[in-house]
Amino acid sequence: MNKTDINNMISRDGFPNSERIYIKGKMEGVNVAMRQIKLSPTRNSDDTLEENAPLTVYDTSGPFTDPNIKIDLNKGIDKIRQPWIESRKNEIIQTQMYFAKRGIITPEMEYVAIRENQGLSEEQLQKGEKLVTPEFVRDEVASGRAIIPANIKHPESEPMIIGKNFLTKINANIGNSPVDSSIEKEVDKSVWAFRWGADTIMDLSTGDNIHQTREWILRNSPVPVGTVPLYQALEKTKGKSEDLSWEVFRETLIEQAEQGVDYFTIHAGLLWRHIRHTINRTTGIVSRGGAIMAKWCMYHHQESFLYTHFDEICDILAQYDIAISLGDALRPGSIADANDRAQFAELETLGELCQRAWDKNVQVMIEGPGHVPMHKIKENMELQEKLCHNAPFYTLGPITTDIAPGYDHITSAIGGAMIGWLGTAMLCYVTPKEHLGLPNKDDVKTGVITYKIAAHASDLAKGIVGAQVRDNAMSKARFEFRWKDQFCISLDPETAMKYHDETLPDEGSKQSHFCSMCGEHFCSMKASRDVRDMAAKKEKKRQEFIEAGGEVYN
Amino acid sequence: MNKTDINNMISRDGFPNSERIYIKGKMEGVNVAMRQIKLSPTRNSDDTLEENAPLTVYDTSGPFTDPNIKIDLNKGIDKIRQPWIESRKNEIIQTQMYFAKRGIITPEMEYVAIRENQGLSEEQLQKGEKLVTPEFVRDEVASGRAIIPANIKHPESEPMIIGKNFLTKINANIGNSPVDSSIEKEVDKSVWAFRWGADTIMDLSTGDNIHQTREWILRNSPVPVGTVPLYQALEKTKGKSEDLSWEVFRETLIEQAEQGVDYFTIHAGLLWRHIRHTINRTTGIVSRGGAIMAKWCMYHHQESFLYTHFDEICDILAQYDIAISLGDALRPGSIADANDRAQFAELETLGELCQRAWDKNVQVMIEGPGHVPMHKIKENMELQEKLCHNAPFYTLGPITTDIAPGYDHITSAIGGAMIGWLGTAMLCYVTPKEHLGLPNKDDVKTGVITYKIAAHASDLAKGIVGAQVRDNAMSKARFEFRWKDQFCISLDPETAMKYHDETLPDEGSKQSHFCSMCGEHFCSMKASRDVRDMAAKKEKKRQEFIEAGGEVYN
Repeated sequence: MNKTDINNMISRDGFPNSERIYIKGKMEGVNVAMRQIKLSPTRNSDDTLEENAPLTVYDTSGPFTDPNIKIDLNKGIDKIRQPWIESRKNEIIQTQMYFAKRGIITPEMEYVAIRENQGLSEEQLQKGEKLVTPEFVRDEVASGRAIIPANIKHPESEPMIIGKNFLTKINANIGNSPVDSSIEKEVDKSVWAFRWGADTIMDLSTGDNIHQTREWILRNSPVPVGTVPLYQALEKTKGKSEDLSWEVFRETLIEQAEQGVDYFTIHAGLLWRHIRHTINRTTGIVSRGGAIMAKWCMYHHQESFLYTHFDEICDILAQYDIAISLGDALRPGSIADANDRAQFAELETLGELCQRAWDKNVQVMIEGPGHVPMHKIKENMELQEKLCHNAPFYTLGPITTDIAPGYDHITSAIGGAMIGWLGTAMLCYVTPKEHLGLPNKDDVKTGVITYKIAAHASDLAKGIVGAQVRDNAMSKARFEFRWKDQFCISLDPETAMKYHDETLPDEGSKQSHFCSMCGEHFCSMKASRDVRDMAAKKEKKRQEFIEAGGEVYN
Repeated sequence: MNKTDINNMISRDGFPNSERIYIKGKMEGVNVAMRQIKLSPTRNSDDTLEENAPLTVYDTSGPFTDPNIKIDLNKGIDKIRQPWIESRKNEIIQTQMYFAKRGIITPEMEYVAIRENQGLSEEQLQKGEKLVTPEFVRDEVASGRAIIPANIKHPESEPMIIGKNFLTKINANIGNSPVDSSIEKEVDKSVWAFRWGADTIMDLSTGDNIHQTREWILRNSPVPVGTVPLYQALEKTKGKSEDLSWEVFRETLIEQAEQGVDYFTIHAGLLWRHIRHTINRTTGIVSRGGAIMAKWCMYHHQESFLYTHFDEICDILAQYDIAISLGDALRPGSIADANDRAQFAELETLGELCQRAWDKNVQVMIEGPGHVPMHKIKENMELQEKLCHNAPFYTLGPITTDIAPGYDHITSAIGGAMIGWLGTAMLCYVTPKEHLGLPNKDDVKTGVITYKIAAHASDLAKGIVGAQVRDNAMSKARFEFRWKDQFCISLDPETAMKYHDETLPDEGSKQSHFCSMCGEHFCSMKASRDVRDMAAKKEKKRQEFIEAGGEVYN
């Protein structure tokens, strides 16, 4: 594929009735992108029209949905953070946590504060709600409760924050495998993933061209990019886990750090002595990184080099402000293995490593399961908070039953929504292909939308500021039969409209007071509006009666 | 469409590697159908083979998946309950609750006890678990905690039970609307729905040929069939709600009772005085039956005839053993309206009506919401149990966010799984077309599978006897790379295999120790098996060392 082709391949379509707007901050260069959805007016019973204010929503799609910005994938997108990074280049340590601890509010912090507020004004808040301030962001980052993954070598990224007191974020895994895909397909998938709402992406490529695929993705990604460096290290040893070493791993870390990876999943919490707890499990070790390191420990009769060299790893990460995502190598891979000794033994080690990383000003999140039935989810969250000192939890689902391959986006959205509500800060998506094969572009979209649902359901339950504004706008549009607005407000306007139009495709049906589900006579919303009109008339008569001197009981 | 065509249209395919088996009870004619899935042997590291016992699972597909049974849709399926019904024909009251209260175990009760146990033996139970006995079933039915919907005019149905101490059930809504569909399409959808796991179906037809559609469905349905009689009554008044009357409604009830409908949704809890609580709601009244009755009350300035004639309704139902599903006319239709005064005022009335129905030996369930954010779900379940004396709760979802039309099977599976865990006995499915149009056959399947997931996740969390057996069989097959077994055990074998084969279609890949997601070097399951083999070898050496007189520390 040549360079022109890939530029034509990726989606640059905007969203319907939407505009990418920018809200300026107080600090130099802070210009926060959001999506504003224009709504049509309400038609009252007396046929008068009433304006509906536009709805502003969080936007992860980057410059790709802004028609005013020219993009050439070969050059990469604008480096919006470059001036901020330049201005700090003489600091010994580069991390947001370092600045936060010293009381410094960075432009990145102001950016995320504005971004989290989604264009809400003070007046729109419900009682007791407060807008997010840059100082609040700083405090959360300083305490380790939240992270802003932002490698100084990835100036293209639009700052975002991961923490339990902010909107629940989602990650989309992309990346080729030795069996399938190509660089172009994976770049296309990444643009597609953040278009639909991925807050971060992880490039988990394991096949050929790992370095080049990652370079293309990073230079064109407005969202933070994570990786599992061990995968590339294993490519360097030609798939032989026993040939891995600290030296190969260190070299890989630096290679990826220089490219701009924003967070690394590192399975440093898997200790040699933990392995025996997995021997009688139903599904053993299901983390790829974990299985590789367990093999290494068993072969060499040695403690994992990820653990023994942990401080050196942190020193490298601090130079770039790469966050560490402490991988849960021993997460359960089946309902049978949930919350077992292996899993919680490792979690304890992750808590120890979390503190050590913080001591070196490295931002940390903790990865979580996996396969967990609903009644065991709460224990995961509570133990994680306790053992890992409130560092953000970043979970894969969890999947709540093993029996539905092909639908694991759903089995895991159930668990994801629940653990998000309980305090998890970021949910790693699961696609319909989980356990079966490499996801294609459709699967990526399904996974992202499903996880936006789980994350948003969490936000409503957590009571995150302004979370319900979009639901309210949708419900109002629904009750008023503003069909086009319903499509535009929804997470996936294309699909909503396509489904509606399957049975009622004509333009007139987008104005009509019913759909094909119930038809006209049986539309409850229509009948309900009639009831409301009848009640209003009755109330009017009652008022007239009172004004005429009548007396009313009730 | 002629009669031959429809017989050819419906699916009679069995499930892969599966057989429909029958387990005999002690009582005459009790012969309980289940699905038995044959599994392939485990290949050990030393290449020896080890048998895996077949897996028996609950089966709602009826005779349609038994190749030994000839079916002609024009004649209907076998009337397996006819002799039992005949033998009781001289009783004044026909309901299962009546017999249960008198200490009588009916063949229906023995049938459901065997069915709930899914072919499990005492030996397969975990500590503290007990098999379901006919006496336990009787006691649950007598107390009103569970129902066996079984109209004496629907002898084709295979008995099933709905109650919090049994497997969580799911209902699939089918039925045409004036805008779309036909008799044949709806019969085809109904067979399709119980094939994939619908425990009951509701025929919500509102267009032409309501009577005939229902007749075809009933004569060919092995699962209980529910309806909302008000819909047909409204057809009789040509869509004019003000022309509805107790007489028209009563006539419709009897017409449907005679056909064999197993449960009726009746919105008798919506009182005239409740309506004013809905006036300031975001989405008013979203129940079709509720909106119709509210209009009637407002027009006539009268209390709902469903409430004023409630005892007469119960008298009719008792004669046929039709269960009443007390409709929640005021369920919230948006996150904004969840758990409001209108909703809970009606719930209180439902509790009163529940007791009145029980006094007449009518089996009862209570319908529940709707749209509810996660943190408000628990209150729904607790209030329902308290106000409705532990009658089974039958909920529509609930949908946990309003912003994802096109994906409301998922927004609601999250709420459904949670409320099922908390004690809801049956979940009414929601399809991807909810809020947008009438579901087609694909939507019905997606809705059913999604709700099987939610119900099963609930069962695992509730600790229903034997629920985890299928998960364990799946996980073992997964760890042993028995790909075909994974497909066969899954809720949707076709989709699982299709997704796997998208990237690795050749037969050899169904034996291989990896899939296209990670490829060979990165398959954690493969690496984990290597670790296990290494650990086993080490342990063997350790034992040899000890036997040779060596001393071991650790």
